[in-house]
Amino acid sequence: MIVVMKPGCEETDVQHVVELVRQMGLKEHVIVGTDRTVVAAIGDKRNVDKGAIENAGMVDRIVPILAPYKVASKETQLEPSAVEIAPGAVIGGPGIGVIAGPCSVEDEGRLLEIAHAVKEAGAIGLRGGAFKPRTNPYSFQGLGETGLKYLAKARDATGLAVVTEIMSIDQVDMVAGYADVLQIGTRNMHNFNLLVAAGKTNKPILLKRGWSATLDEFLLAAEYIMNEGNRNVILCERGIRTHEEYVRNTLPLAVIPAVKRESHLPIIIDPSQGTGHAYMVPSMSLASIAAGADGLIVEVHNDPEHAMTDGAQSITPEAFARLMKDARNVAVAIGRSA
Amino acid sequence: MIVVMKPGCEETDVQHVVELVRQMGLKEHVIVGTDRTVVAAIGDKRNVDKGAIENAGMVDRIVPILAPYKVASKETQLEPSAVEIAPGAVIGGPGIGVIAGPCSVEDEGRLLEIAHAVKEAGAIGLRGGAFKPRTNPYSFQGLGETGLKYLAKARDATGLAVVTEIMSIDQVDMVAGYADVLQIGTRNMHNFNLLVAAGKTNKPILLKRGWSATLDEFLLAAEYIMNEGNRNVILCERGIRTHEEYVRNTLPLAVIPAVKRESHLPIIIDPSQGTGHAYMVPSMSLASIAAGADGLIVEVHNDPEHAMTDGAQSITPEAFARLMKDARNVAVAIGRSA
Amino acid sequence: MIVVMKPGCEETDVQHVVELVRQMGLKEHVIVGTDRTVVAAIGDKRNVDKGAIENAGMVDRIVPILAPYKVASKETQLEPSAVEIAPGAVIGGPGIGVIAGPCSVEDEGRLLEIAHAVKEAGAIGLRGGAFKPRTNPYSFQGLGETGLKYLAKARDATGLAVVTEIMSIDQVDMVAGYADVLQIGTRNMHNFNLLVAAGKTNKPILLKRGWSATLDEFLLAAEYIMNEGNRNVILCERGIRTHEEYVRNTLPLAVIPAVKRESHLPIIIDPSQGTGHAYMVPSMSLASIAAGADGLIVEVHNDPEHAMTDGAQSITPEAFARLMKDARNVAVAIGRSA
Amino acid sequence: MIVVMKPGCEETDVQHVVELVRQMGLKEHVIVGTDRTVVAAIGDKRNVDKGAIENAGMVDRIVPILAPYKVASKETQLEPSAVEIAPGAVIGGPGIGVIAGPCSVEDEGRLLEIAHAVKEAGAIGLRGGAFKPRTNPYSFQGLGETGLKYLAKARDATGLAVVTEIMSIDQVDMVAGYADVLQIGTRNMHNFNLLVAAGKTNKPILLKRGWSATLDEFLLAAEYIMNEGNRNVILCERGIRTHEEYVRNTLPLAVIPAVKRESHLPIIIDPSQGTGHAYMVPSMSLASIAAGADGLIVEVHNDPEHAMTDGAQSITPEAFARLMKDARNVAVAIGRSA
Repeated sequence: MIVVMKPGCEETDVQHVVELVRQMGLKEHVIVGTDRTVVAAIGDKRNVDKGAIENAGMVDRIVPILAPYKVASKETQLEPSAVEIAPGAVIGGPGIGVIAGPCSVEDEGRLLEIAHAVKEAGAIGLRGGAFKPRTNPYSFQGLGETGLKYLAKARDATGLAVVTEIMSIDQVDMVAGYADVLQIGTRNMHNFNLLVAAGKTNKPILLKRGWSATLDEFLLAAEYIMNEGNRNVILCERGIRTHEEYVRNTLPLAVIPAVKRESHLPIIIDPSQGTGHAYMVPSMSLASIAAGADGLIVEVHNDPEHAMTDGAQSITPEAFARLMKDARNVAVAIGRSA
Repeated sequence: MIVVMKPGCEETDVQHVVELVRQMGLKEHVIVGTDRTVVAAIGDKRNVDKGAIENAGMVDRIVPILAPYKVASKETQLEPSAVEIAPGAVIGGPGIGVIAGPCSVEDEGRLLEIAHAVKEAGAIGLRGGAFKPRTNPYSFQGLGETGLKYLAKARDATGLAVVTEIMSIDQVDMVAGYADVLQIGTRNMHNFNLLVAAGKTNKPILLKRGWSATLDEFLLAAEYIMNEGNRNVILCERGIRTHEEYVRNTLPLAVIPAVKRESHLPIIIDPSQGTGHAYMVPSMSLASIAAGADGLIVEVHNDPEHAMTDGAQSITPEAFARLMKDARNVAVAIGRSA
Repeated sequence: MIVVMKPGCEETDVQHVVELVRQMGLKEHVIVGTDRTVVAAIGDKRNVDKGAIENAGMVDRIVPILAPYKVASKETQLEPSAVEIAPGAVIGGPGIGVIAGPCSVEDEGRLLEIAHAVKEAGAIGLRGGAFKPRTNPYSFQGLGETGLKYLAKARDATGLAVVTEIMSIDQVDMVAGYADVLQIGTRNMHNFNLLVAAGKTNKPILLKRGWSATLDEFLLAAEYIMNEGNRNVILCERGIRTHEEYVRNTLPLAVIPAVKRESHLPIIIDPSQGTGHAYMVPSMSLASIAAGADGLIVEVHNDPEHAMTDGAQSITPEAFARLMKDARNVAVAIGRSA
Repeated sequence: MIVVMKPGCEETDVQHVVELVRQMGLKEHVIVGTDRTVVAAIGDKRNVDKGAIENAGMVDRIVPILAPYKVASKETQLEPSAVEIAPGAVIGGPGIGVIAGPCSVEDEGRLLEIAHAVKEAGAIGLRGGAFKPRTNPYSFQGLGETGLKYLAKARDATGLAVVTEIMSIDQVDMVAGYADVLQIGTRNMHNFNLLVAAGKTNKPILLKRGWSATLDEFLLAAEYIMNEGNRNVILCERGIRTHEEYVRNTLPLAVIPAVKRESHLPIIIDPSQGTGHAYMVPSMSLASIAAGADGLIVEVHNDPEHAMTDGAQSITPEAFARLMKDARNVAVAIGRSA
């Protein structure tokens, strides 16, 4: 941490900051510049609220130096992590892992039909919400356990790994009984109790970035899970809130090289929620692969016009099959296995 | 809902949209303009996913007309709601209701000292976190039930209403056993299971706006609570995520007239988290009152430099007493009782 | 500047950074922490592109320490600047200075009527655009010099200072021949050639913050003007671009205490463009005064439903008179002269 | 345009809106829904300020239906536009057109060296700033006409099209005398006088999106240029301002499919300014191509650590050559010519 003093501070102001730094168990290092004095505080105390020093007299601001996360960072592990979501199906390896399926599980027959279609096109995971986080209390809230049963049947029929969302700590055990991967959605990325509960399972966790989370906060959410002993975390970018009006969310693909630089965890992209429009899904999927993503999670529905949720951003199985073919070509072009 | 067709659409495209509208149980109304055709869909179907129509051929976009919330809106109740948080202590009436206290409950003696100070200065509620949502898993996580007991003691000693946060559904009953007002924080505004659980209690709920929530989403979160039968919701603005670098959050005070226009619910402002800097708290508190807020929630600590959390944005009891005096003057200036 | 090295950097990496720092004419100071090494660079070289060091091997990032502006900062002048816009009419003194008038100058009679009304209500300046920056090329672009003549007549009739916008360097001389204050709008805050041209006049400059400008960039724009010798700069906040949907712009009033902390320049608020809705103008005006603003600039029109521009955010002369009365009460409540 | 009335409006309120609509030269169409009444206004009046109706009694809000631009839209021209920037060098055709070079022109020798390198790697244009828009008045402002002369020499030596920025209307003629493409930077996208001046030349214009511009505003800026008779506009995305902290700007690649859907104009991406970090430039370049961009503009410097401007985001000629090879592979993978 660096404490920047205001211009015109006195020796006693600096001395007071030095004392506060020492009280935190850190070692100080005072640098008197031409215009400003700064106090560098040396030591690893991620658990102390250093911001409090901002309240001391003549302190201008605090600049943190250490990244606040550890086990999610490359400081702990240099080689990339690969997460196996089903026997032989890996996200984070040399290839691209794609998860696809409807936004919500609607009925058994439809789910099976979509599952077979995405499997044939090359997906390794089947998405489908049984518990749906809906902004509007009057909207369809998901089929609950019945939906989970349909998903399990679809796995048995296709071999696809089942990826589905947990919204609350009381759902974790039940969902873990059916699913292969537990998803934590954008609205719950800061739900720390849920992160801890997910960390106590032995299931891979698909962690979506919060709408307005910083990269540090995203990796700290992963740290919450990993800190409980579950290191199988797959990061997922699904778009952020900005002023843009032609998308439901702005999809910031530079998060891919940033994550690859800071962390060993794999990252996939959700181009469906990341844009909100079906017509953008193919191009943004290819862009994600080209940018180095380890995979995709895509909303596919065999009748988008009548989908109970997210119809506007769902693509058809036919469009998905074309997308997969193009994605393989792009993967090969950048030197990944298809 | 208005469905805007693309230029050059055919009669069959329009007819297809008309059928989709009818399948939703709505009545269509086609308007052929000079450049564009639009299909207005008439009827109140808040529970249907209308966005799916965007996937139909030659549809440009969907424009919703109805506000998605109901019981939180003025369409249901015109006169403002007032929420009693302790006998005789009201938020939403002619006066201003101020809640103050430390970010976290740290120890009993300190809490009591702060409680007495803010009570004397005119606060009606005591804030203090026993369960703390911390971005960093290594940070202080709160005293838990011990903290709740200290809060209850402080209420007994001062008569202040106790306002404290619930982070998870399994905490609701326990916290409700000690607190007068249950707070749902910004990170949990979209935690729908928690909203439902809060709605099943009979305690007033202090609902903070999510960092990147729209106004519609904010009011829909209130709707989730009210929909369970608990109509005692106090809205709280605590700042949003933007590109600004001189604040921790941008405090958008225009939300006050906007809420007053759309909803009957009271709204208070958190100038501490809404800015992140103690030096901004007094001026933004006065601005909030002048803009029509029904109250404030302010972080007050008797030793901010050593506060375990949020020291940078905590003000001292002395600064709080001055703030309250000024706030009363501003309240009177705009015709409110002090 | 602080150069933060990556974990695992070698002595040669640090030595390379030290050389780059020296080449910039700065003095280095190496601090070896428990996890990270940082190189502090001492000296005042605001004119060097320090970011280039980020490209050196094993450099994690650069943290600037010095504020990039000088003459606009409190480091140069501690007492607040007051800007006289007409004889005896000051912005930045103990009182509140309000500028009001139509968005665009439309015709002479209407302008005079509005000017008399706002003067009577207590305004000291008359706003009105003769050159209009319009997003749409097909929109009304202003009356040009004819509009300036109407403004000058209105000044003669009322004694109000004329405040009007310059959009391009070739307009500066002509506009300066009629106006008392030259306004630089949000779209031109980064138009450095225009800033320099404005700095070469001896007219007070009303500088609006860019839609997405940081505070540093806002004060640097003022620095551009002041650097040419014109120190009569009035800052104006008019809202920023965010994800919020219920306003045209988000009005971040915490910029007021921030400017007061960093700079000696006066700051006023534009609640009309800062919200985009007439119904929000009164409450946000009062909030601005309560937060410590030195004044307001308000769009007033005597027939908003037929205004050629910005009708949605213009208030009537009657509403303005009420607003001024309330604003005076709030000013007195916070200890300012009315 | 759709005028949405508030709930509870009276027949006279609707009638008043109908009158206002007629006064605008539009035809009304009243639809009485179950909860809301809306008034659809039919006719093409892009030049009228329709927002003024929001000020009428019981009006809730206005929803525009028509896109505000025309000649830039697909309504006017369906087939994509291709812009020739040098004999045989096209942006917007089946292939990918890449412009590369230093941020600023620094000296003749260095510029020539970089120009030869990027030409050999496959670039068709040479970028280099002679007039630099610098946030800080104390920063290097560019070599001016001397820089233009160096650029012209580099063109003569390599055959690359010269792309350089105009910042002010008084520079347009001079720059047009040396350059092949005039660039309008992000800070000037809303500088309408400059757009008009650019539209009066016969040079291709590279128009960068403003930091916080909407898609509509971006296309309207193009419309300003085209409206003057110059239809050779190349759009360029270079990142927007958001809350993200790990990039200088957030690069929203979904703008590519959005532009392709709404407009016939070509669009290229600036991954250097679009991220601010050299290490992100290769991956974001490939992502741009995969997403359907018509080209790139990349900052290349042969000694980034000592670059006078933008060193942190400049890549070396060697890195650029690798990037071009990969970009060709991706282009082929998605069916474009390399």
